[in-house]
Amino acid sequence: MTDPKSYISLHTQTVNETLERILPPETERPERLHQATRYSVFAGGKRLRPILCIAACEACGGTPQQAIKAACALELLHTYTLIHDDLPAMDNDTLRRGRPTCHVAFDEATAILAGDALLTLAFEVLATVPNIGNTLTLELARAAGSRGVIAGQAEDLAAEGQMPNAEMVEYIHRNKTAALIRAACVMGGLCAGADSHYLENLATYSENIGLAFQLVDDLLDESSTEEELGKNIGSDKEKGKMTWPAVHGIEATRIKADELTHKACSAAENLPHAAILNAIAQLMVARRN
Amino acid sequence: MTDPKSYISLHTQTVNETLERILPPETERPERLHQATRYSVFAGGKRLRPILCIAACEACGGTPQQAIKAACALELLHTYTLIHDDLPAMDNDTLRRGRPTCHVAFDEATAILAGDALLTLAFEVLATVPNIGNTLTLELARAAGSRGVIAGQAEDLAAEGQMPNAEMVEYIHRNKTAALIRAACVMGGLCAGADSHYLENLATYSENIGLAFQLVDDLLDESSTEEELGKNIGSDKEKGKMTWPAVHGIEATRIKADELTHKACSAAENLPHAAILNAIAQLMVARRN
Repeated sequence: MTDPKSYISLHTQTVNETLERILPPETERPERLHQATRYSVFAGGKRLRPILCIAACEACGGTPQQAIKAACALELLHTYTLIHDDLPAMDNDTLRRGRPTCHVAFDEATAILAGDALLTLAFEVLATVPNIGNTLTLELARAAGSRGVIAGQAEDLAAEGQMPNAEMVEYIHRNKTAALIRAACVMGGLCAGADSHYLENLATYSENIGLAFQLVDDLLDESSTEEELGKNIGSDKEKGKMTWPAVHGIEATRIKADELTHKACSAAENLPHAAILNAIAQLMVARRN
Repeated sequence: MTDPKSYISLHTQTVNETLERILPPETERPERLHQATRYSVFAGGKRLRPILCIAACEACGGTPQQAIKAACALELLHTYTLIHDDLPAMDNDTLRRGRPTCHVAFDEATAILAGDALLTLAFEVLATVPNIGNTLTLELARAAGSRGVIAGQAEDLAAEGQMPNAEMVEYIHRNKTAALIRAACVMGGLCAGADSHYLENLATYSENIGLAFQLVDDLLDESSTEEELGKNIGSDKEKGKMTWPAVHGIEATRIKADELTHKACSAAENLPHAAILNAIAQLMVARRN
C-alpha cells in the first residue's frame, strides 16, 4: 500500500488543481465576490471530504479520476458551510485555519453571497458528471439540506447554553459533521459504480468515522493551543456549545472515538481495497489539528 | 386560448400543492427552520417563474405535468434569493409581500439557514427529474450562480450610492432578475423536449420580458403605495439603488419596457403555442404590484 501521507498529499494536489480550474478567476466580475470564494476555498483546508471520496472510489475498484468532480463538489459545499457558520449571526468566528474568516477579510454581504455561490457551484459541477450526475446530486443535497448539515447547524445554535444532553449532541454531530462525510464516501462508491453491498459498507464506515472525527474535534478544542489549531479555541465552551466531552467526559470521549474507528475499519474490510480507508481513519483519530 | 388569469390561477394552485408536498412539515425537526422555509415559500408570491416554466413547456407542445418539478425548483430558488437579499447585511428589508421578512419574523441565523435549505432543496428536486435532471440543474445553477443572480446582487450592493450609469444598471437587472426568468423559460422548453430553435426563441422571449419585468418593478417602486406593493417602497431611491428610471428617466423606462415586451412576443410567435406566453408578457408590463 502507498504511504497514506503521500496518498493524501498527492490527491490534495489534484483536488486543488481541479478547484483552481473550476472556480471563476479573481479578475472576473464581480471581482470581490470571486476573490472571497477563492480566499475561502484556498485557505489551506485538509481536503478530508475529497480525499475520502477518492479513497472510497478506489476502495471499490474505481480510479481517482472517476471521483474527482464529486470530490471537488464536496469541498465547495463544505467551504460554503464554513463561511456561513462563521457569520456574526451564527457562530461569530473571526479566525479559521489561522486567517481571518471570510466576513472579516471581506464583509458580511460578500461572505453570504460567496457561500451561496459555492453551494450553487457544487451542484453545477455534479451536473457535469455523465450518467450518475442525478444520483450524486441527490446524495449530496440530502446530506447537506434541512435534514442533514443544515439541521445540525440549526440545532447546534438552538442548543447553545442549554444543559448538555446525550441525545442532542449526537443529533448535532451526526447531522452537522457525519452526514457530509457519509455523503463523501457513498459518492465515491457511486463514482466507482459500486453495488449496494459495497455502498452499505461505505455508509457504515463513514457514519462511524464521521462521528469519530467530530469527537476528536471536540477533544482538540479543549486541549490544543490556538496556534496548533488555527482557529479560536476553547470557543465551544465559551459559547456554551454542546460537545461530546461536556456530556460524557474526556476519557469516555476518547474511548468512544476509538470504538467508532474500530467499527469503521471492520466495515471497510468488506471492500476490495480497504487499506487506504483504514489508514485515513487511523490518521483522523490521531491528528493534532 | 384559456383566459390568462384563469391559466395563472389554475397553475398557481398546482404549484402550491406540489410545494406543499415537497417542503418538510413544520412539525419536523428542526421545527423553527422548517417553519421559516414554509413561512417564506407560502407568503403569497406571484409564482411568476413557475408559471413561465409551465407556459414555456406548453408553448413547445409539452404538458404542465412535465414541467412541474422544474417549476417548483425555480420557486424554491427564487424564495432563497429573497430571504438572503432581505438580510440586514444585504438590503436590510423588513417588509415583503405585506408581512415581516424572514429574519424579522424568525431571526437572522434561521433566515440564513432557511435560504440555504431552499437553495439545496431546489437542486434535490431537479435531481429527481428522469433523463434531463442534469441539463435542468446546469441551466438553473448557471443562472443562479456567481455569473448570474449572485453576480447581480453583488454588483447591486456595490453600486449603492454610486452615480447611476447605464452599463451598470443593465448588468444588475440582467443578472439579478432576467437570468432566472430566462432559466425558467428555457427549463420549461427542456421539459417539453424542445429543439435548439425553440430553446433559442424561448431565451429571446425571456431575456426581454425578464428585463421588462424589472423596469416595471423600478417604475412601481417610484409610483406605488406601500399597501399596493406589500413591501417598503421608495426604498430603491432611499438606499441609492441603481434603477432604470434613475439613469434614463421615467418616460424612457416605460417606452423601453414596451419595446422589450414587443420583442419578447415576436420571438414567442416562432413557437407552436405562443398565446399564453404573450398574454403573460402583457400582464407583466401592465401589473400594479
